[in-house]
Amino acid sequence: MTPTDAVWDAKTAEPSARERKKADRRRAILTAALALIEERGLKGATFELIAARAGVARGTVFNYFPSKEAILVAYFATQLDELARRVALQRERHTRPGEPPFDALAEIDYLFAELARFVEGHRELILPISFELLDPNAERSRAAYLAIPLVELLRSALKRAQAAGSVRADYSAERLARTLANVYFITALQWAAYRHDRDAREEFAVALRLALEGLIGASAAARA
Amino acid sequence: MTPTDAVWDAKTAEPSARERKKADRRRAILTAALALIEERGLKGATFELIAARAGVARGTVFNYFPSKEAILVAYFATQLDELARRVALQRERHTRPGEPPFDALAEIDYLFAELARFVEGHRELILPISFELLDPNAERSRAAYLAIPLVELLRSALKRAQAAGSVRADYSAERLARTLANVYFITALQWAAYRHDRDAREEFAVALRLALEGLIGASAAARA
Repeated sequence: MTPTDAVWDAKTAEPSARERKKADRRRAILTAALALIEERGLKGATFELIAARAGVARGTVFNYFPSKEAILVAYFATQLDELARRVALQRERHTRPGEPPFDALAEIDYLFAELARFVEGHRELILPISFELLDPNAERSRAAYLAIPLVELLRSALKRAQAAGSVRADYSAERLARTLANVYFITALQWAAYRHDRDAREEFAVALRLALEGLIGASAAARA
Repeated sequence: MTPTDAVWDAKTAEPSARERKKADRRRAILTAALALIEERGLKGATFELIAARAGVARGTVFNYFPSKEAILVAYFATQLDELARRVALQRERHTRPGEPPFDALAEIDYLFAELARFVEGHRELILPISFELLDPNAERSRAAYLAIPLVELLRSALKRAQAAGSVRADYSAERLARTLANVYFITALQWAAYRHDRDAREEFAVALRLALEGLIGASAAARA
């Protein structure tokens, strides 16, 4: 795998004109919704107001986003797409002569630091996003899970790490990615719910370190 | 720390007659509620039916348990109390001559295996218990969190492990216990929500192994 590989493939196919128009309208609705959520909170940003600001019919908003939680999930997904692009750029940049290496573990640290920054900056959105992911309606939680490309993003970094021998290879990159995604979601949830007096980046850094090194840890293993 | 130490201390104080009576009534309500939940499901087990079967007024049920989720949380807590007693017995038994040692890592394995068994046997209760723990009403989720002595149980095992040098000591036993409790809850939630076609004990065993050994793992660390 070369550093210039796309972080994931599905995003690289060329869209048709119709698809592009749909994507534009979706983005307009999303932008309007997020501005309104910022101004009026999640409850205050009604579907009527979102439709009016985006210049579409109320039913159109529903067609794109069946619930406000779906809007939040979509927003988080766009942020992750952005993050994937930044990761691809970093991989690219660090192949240039004179640049320090951006190894797979550095990439994972970078991902967690950026994800912590998102949580810190959007505390009020974290609980509804988390609940959507944990919805007892399995179809709904599955849709949210699939819409959020976090596991893909982590899997890509973990595959690099496995190839470099810097993480274990006795479990699939998918399994390791799901493990880290879980660490991320539960850290986000707990920080947002009742630990936001603490430094979010420090919370995420500790959670990541424990997940990577394990509770046994190299020091205890060496002593044993 | 000797193996005969109580797994946690608060439970060892001698109760007064009044406290004992309260505890008896609470247990009667809990028993009635669980039998009804088993017979009729969570929705079918109404407060009226629970009160009638326990032989108390409806308001009395509310005094002890403000919601049905609180009943489930209390039930899970009693199961954990039972588990704590079994762990104490195991610690005791294994100090006898000729018995193999029950070291702290064996205790953690045992705890996870027993917790997996609980999840496997109570799939329909796992989602409501998890949602209570993750309730956006911080007071409510905090009450559920405090009522469930899982972190205490894990902390006691992890303190033993730290004393024996078999887990890292650069983080507190409390922090490590919260990490393992998170692994437990998210594994339970995901298994109950959409992975119950898989073997629950295997899912928990893998999640525990990854948490203890870390994603880097001893093999990758040795190779590096």
